[in-house]
Amino acid sequence: MFTNVEHIGIAVRNLAASNNLFTKLLGAEPYKSEAVESEGVTTSFFRVNETKIELLEATRPDSPIARFIEKRGEGVHHVAFEVVDLRVEIERLTLLGFQFLNETPKKGADNKLVVFLHPKSTNGVLVELCQEIKA
Amino acid sequence: MFTNVEHIGIAVRNLAASNNLFTKLLGAEPYKSEAVESEGVTTSFFRVNETKIELLEATRPDSPIARFIEKRGEGVHHVAFEVVDLRVEIERLTLLGFQFLNETPKKGADNKLVVFLHPKSTNGVLVELCQEIKA
Repeated sequence: MFTNVEHIGIAVRNLAASNNLFTKLLGAEPYKSEAVESEGVTTSFFRVNETKIELLEATRPDSPIARFIEKRGEGVHHVAFEVVDLRVEIERLTLLGFQFLNETPKKGADNKLVVFLHPKSTNGVLVELCQEIKA
Repeated sequence: MFTNVEHIGIAVRNLAASNNLFTKLLGAEPYKSEAVESEGVTTSFFRVNETKIELLEATRPDSPIARFIEKRGEGVHHVAFEVVDLRVEIERLTLLGFQFLNETPKKGADNKLVVFLHPKSTNGVLVELCQEIKA
């Protein structure tokens, strides 16, 4: 089950400048910053009610965020839905014909296990499904 | 004050096909469909917790959605934040240097007054601010 729009990921060139911009826009500062070494990104998070705005800056030229910006410029990179059970959703959606970029959940930012659906199967939207890692 | 990610707008080529696709993805059907004549779009809405997913299909070739798809393909078109007072936010954000596509609120879908910020001033994200029209 999809329970929430957990976050909206936005690709930015310069995290410091964009932190400043989104602080002004949203009227609140980011509540945390986190590097995800495996994805080659540094992130920062803002909270608006139950949804987070995640800014993503590439830390190396072969990072997916660097390639996204090179191709399309800055902007919305992905939409992440919180699900109750990631494995159940992977099975359900695979049977329905959706394609995944990774079918084995990986560790994302913010203490989450995540998978990504291929945007070709979701109207050009890069959809992330995430589930919080229980302690 | 920004109180919620009210909806995420997704530009699609074929609303019927995308309704079917998002019904499968989200595991729930759209709860309404609405035409916004002035914008040249037909929309449908899904609900995920407190945020809506709005699919937008162009009804004519000069619609902003038709131009968006021609340029970038299907995908996330805008992110809409619910605000307490639209006029207060327009004044606050103008003073902070943000640019608007329209400074006079207009009637959008779903019984809302809306304004759009220019994506050049918001990291390539088309940001909509909306406020519910009180009866």
